Amino acid sequence: MSGNAETFGLSSAVLLGDLCLVWADRMLNESGLDHVVMHRLNPVYDEMRVELMAGQYLDVLEQALATSSVERSLRIARYKSGKYTVERPLHFGAVIAGADAPTLDLFSRYGLPLGEAFQLRDDILGVFGDPSETGKPAGDDLREGKRTVLIAHAVNKASAAQSIEIRKHLGDPHLSPDGVRVLREIIQETGALSEVERIIEMSLAESLAAISSADLDVDAVAVLKDLAIAATRRVL
Amino acid sequence: MSGNAETFGLSSAVLLGDLCLVWADRMLNESGLDHVVMHRLNPVYDEMRVELMAGQYLDVLEQALATSSVERSLRIARYKSGKYTVERPLHFGAVIAGADAPTLDLFSRYGLPLGEAFQLRDDILGVFGDPSETGKPAGDDLREGKRTVLIAHAVNKASAAQSIEIRKHLGDPHLSPDGVRVLREIIQETGALSEVERIIEMSLAESLAAISSADLDVDAVAVLKDLAIAATRRVL
Repeated sequence: MSGNAETFGLSSAVLLGDLCLVWADRMLNESGLDHVVMHRLNPVYDEMRVELMAGQYLDVLEQALATSSVERSLRIARYKSGKYTVERPLHFGAVIAGADAPTLDLFSRYGLPLGEAFQLRDDILGVFGDPSETGKPAGDDLREGKRTVLIAHAVNKASAAQSIEIRKHLGDPHLSPDGVRVLREIIQETGALSEVERIIEMSLAESLAAISSADLDVDAVAVLKDLAIAATRRVL
Repeated sequence: MSGNAETFGLSSAVLLGDLCLVWADRMLNESGLDHVVMHRLNPVYDEMRVELMAGQYLDVLEQALATSSVERSLRIARYKSGKYTVERPLHFGAVIAGADAPTLDLFSRYGLPLGEAFQLRDDILGVFGDPSETGKPAGDDLREGKRTVLIAHAVNKASAAQSIEIRKHLGDPHLSPDGVRVLREIIQETGALSEVERIIEMSLAESLAAISSADLDVDAVAVLKDLAIAATRRVL
Protein backbone atom coordinates (compact mmCIF):
# COMPACT_ATOMS: atom_id res chain seq x y z
CA MET A 1 0.00 0.00 0.00
CA SER A 2 2.97 2.36 0.24
CA GLY A 3 3.79 4.85 -2.49
CA ASN A 4 6.68 4.40 -4.88
CA ALA A 5 9.17 7.28 -4.70
CA GLU A 6 10.61 6.71 -8.17
CA THR A 7 7.18 6.59 -9.88
CA PHE A 8 6.13 9.70 -7.98
CA GLY A 9 9.30 11.60 -8.96
CA LEU A 10 9.01 10.58 -12.58
CA SER A 11 5.30 11.41 -12.87
CA SER A 12 5.82 14.77 -11.16
CA ALA A 13 8.72 15.64 -13.49
CA VAL A 14 6.60 14.85 -16.56
CA LEU A 15 3.73 16.99 -15.24
CA LEU A 16 6.11 19.84 -14.42
CA GLY A 17 7.42 19.75 -17.98
CA ASP A 18 3.84 19.85 -19.32
CA LEU A 19 3.04 22.74 -17.01
CA CYS A 20 6.07 24.67 -18.28
CA LEU A 21 4.92 24.13 -21.88
CA VAL A 22 1.51 25.56 -20.96
CA TRP A 23 3.03 28.44 -18.98
CA ALA A 24 5.21 29.35 -21.97
CA ASP A 25 2.03 29.50 -24.07
CA ARG A 26 0.32 31.63 -21.50
CA MET A 27 3.26 34.08 -21.35
CA LEU A 28 3.01 34.48 -25.10
CA ASN A 29 -0.79 34.85 -24.96
CA GLU A 30 -0.49 37.47 -22.22
CA SER A 31 2.47 39.32 -23.75
CA GLY A 32 0.21 42.08 -24.99
CA LEU A 33 1.04 41.46 -28.65
CA ASP A 34 -1.64 42.54 -31.07
CA HIS A 35 -4.19 39.83 -32.21
CA VAL A 36 -3.07 40.22 -35.80
CA VAL A 37 0.59 39.72 -34.86
CA MET A 38 -0.33 36.67 -32.74
CA HIS A 39 -2.16 35.19 -35.71
CA ARG A 40 1.00 35.52 -37.83
CA LEU A 41 3.23 34.32 -35.00
CA ASN A 42 1.41 31.18 -33.88
CA PRO A 43 2.36 29.02 -36.91
CA VAL A 44 6.05 29.90 -36.39
CA TYR A 45 5.83 29.08 -32.70
CA ASP A 46 4.00 25.78 -33.30
CA GLU A 47 6.43 24.76 -36.03
CA MET A 48 9.40 25.55 -33.81
CA ARG A 49 8.03 23.38 -31.02
CA VAL A 50 7.27 20.45 -33.34
CA GLU A 51 10.81 20.67 -34.76
CA LEU A 52 12.24 20.72 -31.25
CA MET A 53 10.35 17.56 -30.25
CA ALA A 54 11.44 15.88 -33.48
CA GLY A 55 15.08 16.84 -32.92
CA GLN A 56 14.99 15.73 -29.32
CA TYR A 57 13.47 12.42 -30.40
CA LEU A 58 16.22 11.90 -32.99
CA ASP A 59 18.76 12.56 -30.23
CA VAL A 60 17.12 9.99 -27.92
CA LEU A 61 16.84 7.48 -30.77
CA GLU A 62 20.50 7.88 -31.77
CA GLN A 63 21.59 7.31 -28.18
CA ALA A 64 19.45 4.14 -28.00
CA LEU A 65 20.76 2.82 -31.32
CA ALA A 66 24.33 3.78 -30.33
CA THR A 67 25.28 4.16 -33.99
CA SER A 68 28.09 6.42 -35.17
CA SER A 69 26.82 8.06 -38.34
CA VAL A 70 28.26 11.54 -38.84
CA GLU A 71 25.44 12.36 -41.24
CA ARG A 72 22.75 11.45 -38.70
CA SER A 73 24.47 13.34 -35.92
CA LEU A 74 24.60 16.43 -38.13
CA ARG A 75 20.88 16.10 -38.87
CA ILE A 76 20.17 16.01 -35.13
CA ALA A 77 22.34 19.11 -34.63
CA ARG A 78 20.27 20.79 -37.33
CA TYR A 79 16.83 19.89 -35.93
CA LYS A 80 17.56 20.03 -32.26
CA SER A 81 19.69 23.15 -32.14
CA GLY A 82 20.13 24.66 -35.58
CA LYS A 83 16.49 25.57 -35.88
CA TYR A 84 15.55 25.95 -32.26
CA THR A 85 18.56 27.91 -31.02
CA VAL A 86 19.06 30.46 -33.79
CA GLU A 87 16.87 30.28 -36.93
CA ARG A 88 13.41 30.08 -35.33
CA PRO A 89 14.00 32.69 -32.61
CA LEU A 90 15.16 35.08 -35.37
CA HIS A 91 12.01 34.26 -37.37
CA PHE A 92 9.99 34.79 -34.22
CA GLY A 93 11.27 38.33 -33.75
CA ALA A 94 11.15 39.06 -37.48
CA VAL A 95 7.50 37.99 -37.76
CA ILE A 96 6.56 40.17 -34.78
CA ALA A 97 8.29 43.11 -36.48
CA GLY A 98 6.42 42.36 -39.74
CA ALA A 99 9.51 41.35 -41.77
CA ASP A 100 9.08 40.30 -45.42
CA ALA A 101 9.82 36.85 -46.93
CA PRO A 102 13.38 37.71 -48.16
CA THR A 103 14.32 38.77 -44.61
CA LEU A 104 12.99 35.49 -43.18
CA ASP A 105 14.95 33.64 -45.85
CA LEU A 106 18.11 35.58 -44.98
CA PHE A 107 17.69 34.63 -41.32
CA SER A 108 17.49 30.96 -42.36
CA ARG A 109 20.69 31.22 -44.40
CA TYR A 110 22.40 32.99 -41.50
CA GLY A 111 20.73 31.03 -38.67
CA LEU A 112 20.86 27.39 -39.76
CA PRO A 113 24.64 27.06 -40.19
CA LEU A 114 25.17 29.18 -37.09
CA GLY A 115 22.83 27.00 -35.02
CA GLU A 116 24.65 23.87 -36.16
CA ALA A 117 28.00 25.46 -35.32
CA PHE A 118 26.59 26.43 -31.92
CA GLN A 119 25.63 22.80 -31.28
CA LEU A 120 29.02 21.51 -32.44
CA ARG A 121 30.74 23.96 -30.07
CA ASP A 122 28.44 22.61 -27.35
CA ASP A 123 29.54 19.07 -28.19
CA ILE A 124 33.22 20.05 -27.88
CA LEU A 125 32.58 21.83 -24.56
CA GLY A 126 30.67 18.74 -23.33
CA VAL A 127 33.93 16.79 -23.65
CA PHE A 128 36.74 19.36 -23.29
CA GLY A 129 34.98 22.17 -21.43
CA ASP A 130 36.35 23.55 -18.17
CA PRO A 131 33.75 22.80 -15.45
CA SER A 132 34.52 26.13 -13.73
CA GLU A 133 33.45 27.90 -16.95
CA THR A 134 30.66 25.65 -18.30
CA GLY A 135 29.13 24.85 -14.93
CA LYS A 136 28.81 21.21 -16.02
CA PRO A 137 30.91 18.27 -14.74
CA ALA A 138 33.93 17.47 -16.96
CA GLY A 139 33.17 14.87 -19.64
CA ASP A 140 29.43 14.86 -18.93
CA ASP A 141 28.52 13.94 -22.53
CA LEU A 142 30.96 11.01 -22.40
CA ARG A 143 29.31 9.63 -19.28
CA GLU A 144 25.86 9.95 -20.93
CA GLY A 145 27.17 8.32 -24.10
CA LYS A 146 25.79 11.12 -26.30
CA ARG A 147 26.05 10.39 -30.02
CA THR A 148 27.42 13.74 -31.13
CA VAL A 149 29.17 14.58 -34.40
CA LEU A 150 32.44 14.69 -32.43
CA ILE A 151 31.93 11.16 -31.09
CA ALA A 152 30.75 9.84 -34.47
CA HIS A 153 33.99 11.06 -36.08
CA ALA A 154 36.14 9.56 -33.33
CA VAL A 155 34.35 6.20 -33.56
CA ASN A 156 34.71 6.12 -37.35
CA LYS A 157 38.42 6.97 -37.33
CA ALA A 158 39.44 4.89 -34.30
CA SER A 159 42.08 2.15 -34.59
CA ALA A 160 41.23 -1.35 -33.29
CA ALA A 161 42.87 -0.54 -29.94
CA GLN A 162 41.11 2.80 -29.68
CA SER A 163 37.75 1.17 -30.51
CA ILE A 164 38.15 -1.15 -27.56
CA GLU A 165 38.79 1.82 -25.26
CA ILE A 166 35.75 3.68 -26.64
CA ARG A 167 33.48 0.67 -26.14
CA LYS A 168 34.83 0.30 -22.63
CA HIS A 169 34.32 3.92 -21.49
CA LEU A 170 31.69 5.70 -23.60
CA GLY A 171 28.32 5.81 -21.84
CA ASP A 172 29.70 4.53 -18.52
CA PRO A 173 27.78 6.51 -15.89
CA HIS A 174 30.63 5.98 -13.43
CA LEU A 175 33.37 7.07 -15.83
CA SER A 176 36.46 8.15 -13.84
CA PRO A 177 38.62 11.24 -14.57
CA ASP A 178 41.17 8.79 -16.05
CA GLY A 179 38.50 7.38 -18.39
CA VAL A 180 37.58 10.92 -19.45
CA ARG A 181 41.27 11.60 -20.19
CA VAL A 182 41.58 8.42 -22.31
CA LEU A 183 38.52 9.33 -24.39
CA ARG A 184 39.69 12.93 -24.82
CA GLU A 185 43.02 11.72 -26.15
CA ILE A 186 41.33 9.39 -28.63
CA ILE A 187 39.07 12.22 -29.82
CA GLN A 188 42.16 14.36 -30.42
CA GLU A 189 44.37 11.61 -31.91
CA THR A 190 41.70 10.42 -34.39
CA GLY A 191 41.45 13.99 -35.71
CA ALA A 192 37.77 14.20 -34.62
CA LEU A 193 38.39 17.39 -32.64
CA SER A 194 40.13 19.24 -35.49
CA GLU A 195 37.51 17.96 -37.96
CA VAL A 196 34.67 19.37 -35.85
CA GLU A 197 36.57 22.65 -35.36
CA ARG A 198 36.90 22.78 -39.16
CA ILE A 199 33.11 22.28 -39.64
CA ILE A 200 32.43 25.03 -37.09
CA GLU A 201 34.67 27.46 -38.98
CA MET A 202 33.02 26.56 -42.30
CA SER A 203 29.53 27.02 -40.88
CA LEU A 204 30.52 30.29 -39.28
CA ALA A 205 31.91 31.49 -42.62
CA GLU A 206 28.67 30.45 -44.38
CA SER A 207 26.65 32.32 -41.81
CA LEU A 208 28.75 35.48 -42.08
CA ALA A 209 28.64 35.30 -45.89
CA ALA A 210 24.82 35.35 -45.80
CA ILE A 211 24.97 38.58 -43.80
CA SER A 212 27.59 40.22 -46.00
CA SER A 213 25.61 39.59 -49.17
CA ALA A 214 22.42 41.11 -47.74
CA ASP A 215 21.33 44.73 -47.89
CA LEU A 216 21.15 45.31 -44.16
CA ASP A 217 21.51 48.35 -41.99
CA VAL A 218 25.00 48.74 -40.46
CA ASP A 219 23.83 48.30 -36.86
CA ALA A 220 22.02 45.05 -37.73
CA VAL A 221 25.14 43.67 -39.42
CA ALA A 222 27.25 44.45 -36.35
CA VAL A 223 24.80 42.72 -33.98
CA LEU A 224 24.46 39.63 -36.18
CA LYS A 225 28.25 39.33 -36.57
CA ASP A 226 28.78 39.61 -32.82
CA LEU A 227 26.10 36.97 -32.24
CA ALA A 228 27.78 34.61 -34.71
CA ILE A 229 31.17 34.97 -33.05
CA ALA A 230 29.71 34.66 -29.54
CA ALA A 231 27.78 31.49 -30.45
CA THR A 232 30.76 29.65 -31.93
CA ARG A 233 33.94 30.87 -30.20
CA ARG A 234 32.59 30.68 -26.67
CA VAL A 235 34.04 28.70 -23.76
CA LEU A 236 30.77 28.33 -21.83
CA MET B 1 27.78 1.23 -25.44
CA SER B 2 24.39 -0.35 -26.15
CA GLY B 3 21.17 1.60 -25.80
CA ASN B 4 18.75 1.13 -22.93
CA ALA B 5 15.28 0.06 -24.10
CA GLU B 6 13.48 1.32 -21.00
CA THR B 7 15.11 4.78 -21.10
CA PHE B 8 14.35 5.02 -24.80
CA GLY B 9 10.69 4.05 -24.33
CA LEU B 10 10.23 6.44 -21.45
CA SER B 11 11.92 9.39 -23.20
CA SER B 12 9.92 8.75 -26.37
CA ALA B 13 6.64 8.60 -24.43
CA VAL B 14 7.37 11.94 -22.74
CA LEU B 15 8.22 13.55 -26.09
CA LEU B 16 5.07 12.11 -27.67
CA GLY B 17 3.00 13.62 -24.88
CA ASP B 18 4.70 17.00 -25.42
CA LEU B 19 4.08 16.73 -29.14
CA CYS B 20 0.37 16.04 -28.53
CA LEU B 21 0.14 19.14 -26.32
CA VAL B 22 1.66 21.21 -29.15
CA TRP B 23 -0.55 19.57 -31.80
CA ALA B 24 -3.65 20.36 -29.73
CA ASP B 25 -2.53 24.00 -29.66
CA ARG B 26 -1.95 23.96 -33.38
CA MET B 27 -5.42 22.51 -34.06
CA LEU B 28 -6.91 25.34 -32.06
CA ASN B 29 -4.72 27.94 -33.80
CA GLU B 30 -5.69 26.54 -37.21
CA SER B 31 -9.38 26.06 -36.42
CA GLY B 32 -10.32 29.18 -38.35
CA LEU B 33 -11.74 30.93 -35.29
CA ASP B 34 -11.67 34.70 -35.48
CA HIS B 35 -8.66 36.49 -33.86
CA VAL B 36 -10.96 38.30 -31.45
CA VAL B 37 -12.58 35.01 -30.36
CA MET B 38 -9.15 33.40 -29.95
CA HIS B 39 -8.08 36.30 -27.74
CA ARG B 40 -11.10 35.65 -25.47
CA LEU B 41 -10.62 31.89 -25.62
CA ASN B 42 -6.91 31.55 -24.84
CA PRO B 43 -7.15 32.42 -21.12
CA VAL B 44 -9.89 29.76 -20.69
CA TYR B 45 -7.81 27.19 -22.54
CA ASP B 46 -4.63 27.98 -20.58
CA GLU B 47 -6.47 27.91 -17.26
CA MET B 48 -8.08 24.56 -18.10
CA ARG B 49 -4.70 23.05 -18.90
CA VAL B 50 -3.08 24.38 -15.73
CA GLU B 51 -5.98 22.98 -13.66
CA LEU B 52 -5.62 19.63 -15.38
CA MET B 53 -1.89 19.41 -14.56
CA ALA B 54 -2.63 20.43 -10.97
CA GLY B 55 -5.39 17.81 -10.63
CA GLN B 56 -3.23 15.14 -12.18
CA TYR B 57 -0.41 16.05 -9.80
CA LEU B 58 -2.75 15.80 -6.80
CA ASP B 59 -3.77 12.36 -8.06
CA VAL B 60 -0.14 11.23 -8.36
CA LEU B 61 0.70 12.71 -4.95
CA GLU B 62 -2.26 11.01 -3.24
CA GLN B 63 -1.22 7.67 -4.71
CA ALA B 64 2.36 8.17 -3.45
CA LEU B 65 1.20 9.21 0.03
CA ALA B 66 -1.34 6.35 0.07
CA THR B 67 -3.55 8.32 2.47
CA SER B 68 -7.28 7.79 2.71
CA SER B 69 -8.78 11.25 3.11
CA VAL B 70 -12.26 11.49 1.59
CA GLU B 71 -11.94 15.27 1.48
CA ARG B 72 -8.67 15.13 -0.46
CA SER B 73 -10.03 12.54 -2.89
CA LEU B 74 -13.04 14.76 -3.57
CA ARG B 75 -10.75 17.72 -4.23
CA ILE B 76 -8.85 15.63 -6.78
CA ALA B 77 -12.16 14.61 -8.41
CA ARG B 78 -13.01 18.30 -8.64
CA TYR B 79 -9.72 19.45 -10.17
CA LYS B 80 -8.90 16.49 -12.31
CA SER B 81 -12.34 15.76 -13.73
CA GLY B 82 -14.90 18.22 -12.43
CA LYS B 83 -13.33 21.14 -14.20
CA TYR B 84 -11.64 19.39 -17.10
CA THR B 85 -14.45 17.03 -18.12
CA VAL B 86 -17.52 19.23 -17.91
CA GLU B 87 -17.17 22.81 -16.63
CA ARG B 88 -14.24 24.04 -18.75
CA PRO B 89 -15.41 22.46 -22.04
CA LEU B 90 -18.78 24.18 -21.53
CA HIS B 91 -16.98 27.48 -20.85
CA PHE B 92 -14.90 26.84 -23.94
CA GLY B 93 -17.96 26.58 -26.19
CA ALA B 94 -19.77 29.39 -24.38
CA VAL B 95 -16.85 31.81 -24.81
CA ILE B 96 -16.64 30.98 -28.52
CA ALA B 97 -20.36 31.73 -28.81
CA GLY B 98 -19.87 35.02 -26.93
CA ALA B 99 -21.88 34.04 -23.82
CA ASP B 100 -22.23 36.54 -20.96
CA ALA B 101 -20.93 36.16 -17.38
CA PRO B 102 -24.21 34.78 -15.89
CA THR B 103 -24.21 31.99 -18.50
CA LEU B 104 -20.60 31.07 -17.66
CA ASP B 105 -21.57 31.07 -13.99
CA LEU B 106 -24.56 28.80 -14.70
CA PHE B 107 -22.27 26.37 -16.52
CA SER B 108 -20.03 26.27 -13.44
CA ARG B 109 -22.98 25.54 -11.14
CA TYR B 110 -24.19 22.85 -13.56
CA GLY B 111 -20.77 21.54 -14.61
CA LEU B 112 -18.76 21.27 -11.40
CA PRO B 113 -21.06 18.89 -9.49
CA LEU B 114 -21.70 16.96 -12.69
CA GLY B 115 -17.98 16.58 -13.37
CA GLU B 116 -17.40 15.31 -9.84
CA ALA B 117 -20.29 12.86 -10.21
CA PHE B 118 -18.79 11.74 -13.54
CA GLN B 119 -15.46 11.01 -11.81
CA LEU B 120 -17.16 9.17 -8.93
CA ARG B 121 -19.04 7.01 -11.47
CA ASP B 122 -15.68 6.37 -13.10
CA ASP B 123 -14.24 5.27 -9.76
CA ILE B 124 -17.13 2.81 -9.26
CA LEU B 125 -16.72 1.44 -12.78
CA GLY B 126 -12.96 1.07 -12.18
CA VAL B 127 -13.79 -1.42 -9.42
CA PHE B 128 -17.18 -2.92 -10.35
CA GLY B 129 -17.31 -2.27 -14.11
CA ASP B 130 -17.93 -5.09 -16.57
CA PRO B 131 -14.76 -5.39 -18.72
CA SER B 132 -16.89 -6.22 -21.79
CA GLU B 133 -18.60 -2.82 -21.39
CA THR B 134 -15.83 -0.60 -20.03
CA GLY B 135 -13.06 -2.06 -22.19
CA LYS B 136 -10.77 -2.05 -19.11
CA PRO B 137 -9.61 -5.11 -17.11
CA ALA B 138 -11.80 -5.86 -14.05
CA GLY B 139 -10.53 -4.18 -10.89
CA ASP B 140 -7.92 -2.12 -12.71
CA ASP B 141 -8.03 0.75 -10.18
CA LEU B 142 -7.52 -1.76 -7.34
CA ARG B 143 -4.39 -3.11 -8.97
CA GLU B 144 -3.04 0.42 -9.46
CA GLY B 145 -3.91 1.29 -5.87
CA LYS B 146 -5.77 4.46 -6.90
CA ARG B 147 -6.81 6.64 -3.95
CA THR B 148 -10.37 7.35 -5.04
CA VAL B 149 -13.26 8.61 -2.91
CA LEU B 150 -14.66 5.07 -3.02
CA ILE B 151 -11.44 3.60 -1.63
CA ALA B 152 -11.05 6.36 0.95
CA HIS B 153 -14.52 5.57 2.34
CA ALA B 154 -13.82 1.84 2.43
CA VAL B 155 -10.47 2.34 4.22
CA ASN B 156 -12.05 4.67 6.77
CA LYS B 157 -14.97 2.34 7.55
CA ALA B 158 -13.06 -0.96 7.46
CA SER B 159 -12.97 -3.26 10.50
CA ALA B 160 -9.58 -4.48 11.77
CA ALA B 161 -9.92 -7.70 9.73
CA GLN B 162 -10.99 -5.80 6.61
CA SER B 163 -8.07 -3.34 7.00
CA ILE B 164 -5.64 -6.25 6.91
CA GLU B 165 -7.20 -7.48 3.65
CA ILE B 166 -7.07 -3.99 2.13
CA ARG B 167 -3.40 -3.57 3.03
CA LYS B 168 -2.70 -6.98 1.55
CA HIS B 169 -4.44 -6.49 -1.80
CA LEU B 170 -4.79 -2.81 -2.68
CA GLY B 171 -2.09 -1.69 -5.15
CA ASP B 172 -0.86 -5.24 -5.80
CA PRO B 173 -0.03 -5.22 -9.54
CA HIS B 174 -0.55 -9.00 -9.65
CA LEU B 175 -3.92 -8.92 -7.88
CA SER B 176 -5.87 -12.11 -8.70
CA PRO B 177 -9.61 -12.29 -9.53
CA ASP B 178 -10.10 -13.63 -5.99
CA GLY B 179 -8.31 -10.60 -4.56
CA VAL B 180 -10.54 -8.33 -6.65
CA ARG B 181 -13.60 -10.17 -5.27
CA VAL B 182 -12.40 -9.73 -1.66
CA LEU B 183 -11.85 -5.98 -2.12
CA ARG B 184 -15.20 -5.55 -3.89
CA GLU B 185 -16.98 -7.23 -0.98
CA ILE B 186 -15.23 -4.97 1.53
CA ILE B 187 -16.18 -1.88 -0.49
CA GLN B 188 -19.83 -3.02 -0.43
CA GLU B 189 -19.88 -4.22 3.22
CA THR B 190 -18.32 -1.01 4.57
CA GLY B 191 -21.08 0.98 2.86
CA ALA B 192 -18.52 2.80 0.67
CA LEU B 193 -20.33 1.85 -2.53
CA SER B 194 -23.73 3.09 -1.38
CA GLU B 195 -22.15 6.24 0.08
CA VAL B 196 -20.52 7.10 -3.26
CA GLU B 197 -23.79 6.32 -5.11
CA ARG B 198 -25.47 8.73 -2.70
CA ILE B 199 -22.94 11.50 -3.43
CA ILE B 200 -23.44 10.93 -7.17
CA GLU B 201 -27.22 11.33 -6.81
CA MET B 202 -26.79 14.48 -4.71
CA SER B 203 -24.36 16.01 -7.21
CA LEU B 204 -26.66 15.09 -10.10
CA ALA B 205 -29.60 16.73 -8.31
CA GLU B 206 -27.48 19.88 -7.68
CA SER B 207 -26.52 19.98 -11.32
CA LEU B 208 -30.12 19.56 -12.55
CA ALA B 209 -31.34 22.18 -10.06
CA ALA B 210 -28.93 24.73 -11.55
CA ILE B 211 -30.48 24.09 -14.97
CA SER B 212 -34.09 24.25 -13.73
CA SER B 213 -33.58 27.59 -12.02
CA ALA B 214 -32.09 29.18 -15.14
CA ASP B 215 -33.88 30.98 -17.91
CA LEU B 216 -32.77 28.70 -20.75
CA ASP B 217 -34.27 27.77 -24.08
CA VAL B 218 -36.18 24.44 -24.03
CA ASP B 219 -33.79 22.68 -26.41
CA ALA B 220 -30.75 23.65 -24.33
CA VAL B 221 -32.40 22.32 -21.16
CA ALA B 222 -33.14 18.98 -22.84
CA VAL B 223 -29.54 18.60 -24.04
CA LEU B 224 -28.04 19.52 -20.67
CA LYS B 225 -30.38 17.12 -18.82
CA ASP B 226 -29.50 14.28 -21.19
CA LEU B 227 -25.80 15.02 -20.73
CA ALA B 228 -26.16 14.96 -16.94
CA ILE B 229 -27.93 11.60 -16.97
CA ALA B 230 -25.50 10.13 -19.52
CA ALA B 231 -22.48 11.24 -17.49
CA THR B 232 -23.63 9.74 -14.19
CA ARG B 233 -25.83 6.70 -14.94
CA ARG B 234 -23.53 5.15 -17.53
CA VAL B 235 -22.03 1.66 -17.45
CA LEU B 236 -19.02 2.46 -19.64
